Amino acid sequence: MPIVVYDLAGEDDRRFSPFCWRTRMALAHKGLAADFTPWHFTEKDKIAFTGQGRVPVMVDDGKVIFDSWSIACYLEDRYADRPSLFNGDVGRALSRFVQHFVDSTAQPGLARLIIADVHRHLVPQDRDYFRKSREERFGARLEDIQAGRDQNLAGWRAMLEPVRLQLRERTFMAGEAPSYADYIVFGMFVWARGISPFVLLDRDDPLFQWRDRMMALHGGLASRMPGYSLAA
Amino acid sequence: MPIVVYDLAGEDDRRFSPFCWRTRMALAHKGLAADFTPWHFTEKDKIAFTGQGRVPVMVDDGKVIFDSWSIACYLEDRYADRPSLFNGDVGRALSRFVQHFVDSTAQPGLARLIIADVHRHLVPQDRDYFRKSREERFGARLEDIQAGRDQNLAGWRAMLEPVRLQLRERTFMAGEAPSYADYIVFGMFVWARGISPFVLLDRDDPLFQWRDRMMALHGGLASRMPGYSLAA
Repeated sequence: MPIVVYDLAGEDDRRFSPFCWRTRMALAHKGLAADFTPWHFTEKDKIAFTGQGRVPVMVDDGKVIFDSWSIACYLEDRYADRPSLFNGDVGRALSRFVQHFVDSTAQPGLARLIIADVHRHLVPQDRDYFRKSREERFGARLEDIQAGRDQNLAGWRAMLEPVRLQLRERTFMAGEAPSYADYIVFGMFVWARGISPFVLLDRDDPLFQWRDRMMALHGGLASRMPGYSLAA
Repeated sequence: MPIVVYDLAGEDDRRFSPFCWRTRMALAHKGLAADFTPWHFTEKDKIAFTGQGRVPVMVDDGKVIFDSWSIACYLEDRYADRPSLFNGDVGRALSRFVQHFVDSTAQPGLARLIIADVHRHLVPQDRDYFRKSREERFGARLEDIQAGRDQNLAGWRAMLEPVRLQLRERTFMAGEAPSYADYIVFGMFVWARGISPFVLLDRDDPLFQWRDRMMALHGGLASRMPGYSLAA
């Protein structure tokens, strides 16, 4: 039985969830193949067996795991003989800090820059659900949230300063080799690339070169997805 | 020859530099004794042999090391047989990310809440230098920077959300034992406690309990310094 991942899909089968990309990169890092089953926001019934309504969901050998962090920990422990995602317990704990940083600052910040672009790349049956749930969450129309992005871009880039300082000093987040800490940050950029023409990074930003390195990893896995140009 | 650390000192010999506290905790973690020589802002001549003007400066066996991160790395490598500060290369790299996070967000944010309190705890000969240099840097009077702190406290606490989420899940930043990642964050709190009565944390904040654990470490090292009450 192959590993199955329920993977958020948009129009033209664009796979754009930043959380699903963390899982996809982690599987590639481990050298594990998987079936990435397209899933749409309005298909809650298809993952009802998990008792919750979000992806990624992974099924491996009859075991059901959801939440990208839980999946990464499962892969690290179950496939301990394969290349490590964390490099030990301390690496695992501090990768989790990277995730808390991304999930509470830059990733929700990015949502505000591209949320109407997300909407227009959804399959038609998902669009009403997405608009209603996100407009309730943000308290504004999708187009209004995104409207100020030219002005808000500098503030978003500033949120990434700790990552920028980190990548100015080393090739990847945790040293000379990619690890799960990179996949956490990278998920954001694959998300944006898949659905938005908005240019996030300047060429002279250390994040720009790092993102290129990430796009090339695992046989250019992320670059094979349909997406927009990354440079102006 | 004992290890010597040039350590920022205020009135009543209060040692309040957050960077010097990272070094002090790191030395204690390694079980290394040191002479913490009091140093004042206007004593640039005393550390001129380093070619720069900031503390901590450490001298060990004729070697001169400055900058708290460089000192931590030196201690880890030179005293590799003693308890580890980083637990390997990945732990070292990701501890550096914690430092980039603290140094670019919460620590400069804290400065704005307590900077006039710092000033009034300096030795008299340091006060004019401090006022002039900091008022130039911030473009405002020390008292005016600090004046809005009741309103600014919530925003500062929000900056610490990634740390809070991390400490809600584990005893210390990198797991069940303290490590250099904790000392980076903790330096801020020892700094504030030493010179300001302003209460930073609520009792129900996971950071509050963690700070208590940190205060008790290494024989209550930080709690033996003169300081203000940590709770309202």
